[in-house]
Amino acid sequence: MKLNERGLLIVISGPSGVGKGTVRRALFEMKNHNLVYSVSVTTRPPRAGEVDGKDYYFVDRNTFLQEIKEDKFLEYAEFVGNFYGTPKDKVDEALDSGKEVVLEIEVEGALQVREKMKEAVFIFLVPPSKKALYERLRARGTEDPEIVEKRFKKAEKEFSLAYKYDYIVVNDDVNNAADKIMAIIRAEHARTQRTIHKYTKMLEE
Amino acid sequence: MKLNERGLLIVISGPSGVGKGTVRRALFEMKNHNLVYSVSVTTRPPRAGEVDGKDYYFVDRNTFLQEIKEDKFLEYAEFVGNFYGTPKDKVDEALDSGKEVVLEIEVEGALQVREKMKEAVFIFLVPPSKKALYERLRARGTEDPEIVEKRFKKAEKEFSLAYKYDYIVVNDDVNNAADKIMAIIRAEHARTQRTIHKYTKMLEE
Repeated sequence: MKLNERGLLIVISGPSGVGKGTVRRALFEMKNHNLVYSVSVTTRPPRAGEVDGKDYYFVDRNTFLQEIKEDKFLEYAEFVGNFYGTPKDKVDEALDSGKEVVLEIEVEGALQVREKMKEAVFIFLVPPSKKALYERLRARGTEDPEIVEKRFKKAEKEFSLAYKYDYIVVNDDVNNAADKIMAIIRAEHARTQRTIHKYTKMLEE
Repeated sequence: MKLNERGLLIVISGPSGVGKGTVRRALFEMKNHNLVYSVSVTTRPPRAGEVDGKDYYFVDRNTFLQEIKEDKFLEYAEFVGNFYGTPKDKVDEALDSGKEVVLEIEVEGALQVREKMKEAVFIFLVPPSKKALYERLRARGTEDPEIVEKRFKKAEKEFSLAYKYDYIVVNDDVNNAADKIMAIIRAEHARTQRTIHKYTKMLEE
């Protein structure tokens, strides 16, 4: 028996380089879930292997600025010279149809969503150590050393925002982190404040 | 990497006949856990197959009353003429050694624990319907019809106390309910208020 029908909004966030994308993909490869990924819009150029409409919607700067004006984003942020945003209409649609919507977004954007969507679940993905994060940022090799340095400095500031999240998940191992996130989603569905109305109704029947 | 070392206290409660014992046993049969069951003390006579020291510590009424005086219980309750209690020292010991301690107790006792152990996780196990509960109480066949009626009336009152719990788990299927409880335990370990101190310390290293 399912006690709730409305989908959950799950926000996976954390410093750049912590492995949000990898963990999110491992999560979606798991069985028996009802998750949909909210594809972000970005002005950043595609990395090797990234597909438009699947990894991101790639748009130019003018299009993005126009969509900000039209209030089309649940959140957006400018990050190392590029814009990233979550299209509001697609998220609403999926939640209304009972799906669990996963956002994989930067910390700045996550805090915007926190203001607007009180009922969402906020997960802060963290590296096992600062050193591990630095190594990952370097190993990615898609950015020049200056950007690596910038992202690492930004990450150091973001670490202190962990307290704003509901959960902290250490990305020590991708599958382990994905497993934990799935457990969090299952547990959140059973949380009393989410189920009590439905449960009370069920007992009256 | 584990962010916490202190064990969690997990309280599984719910109306009589909802299947607390069955779900708890299914939970303990699962793999890869660190759970210990806190065996309760009771003055109720053993049912068929119940083992002293494993299912309950069976004591006489005078012994129980003496232990109340000595403040030896984390919670206790008199229920349909019998006392049930949780021995405080054994719970503390197990938590200190980093184990997850599971209490399977009546609603009245759970609310006593709620007052004393703010950091514990409270799970309210409920039947899929009132009718299902009534059938289960009857099918158990260990009590006379009058006691079945008494327990059912008590259950109806207890249903309204669900809001005092952190989670509501429907016992529609024993393994499904046990799975959900395991997910809740995993998720609770990742909750920010439980992990943030450890996490901050880790980053400083």
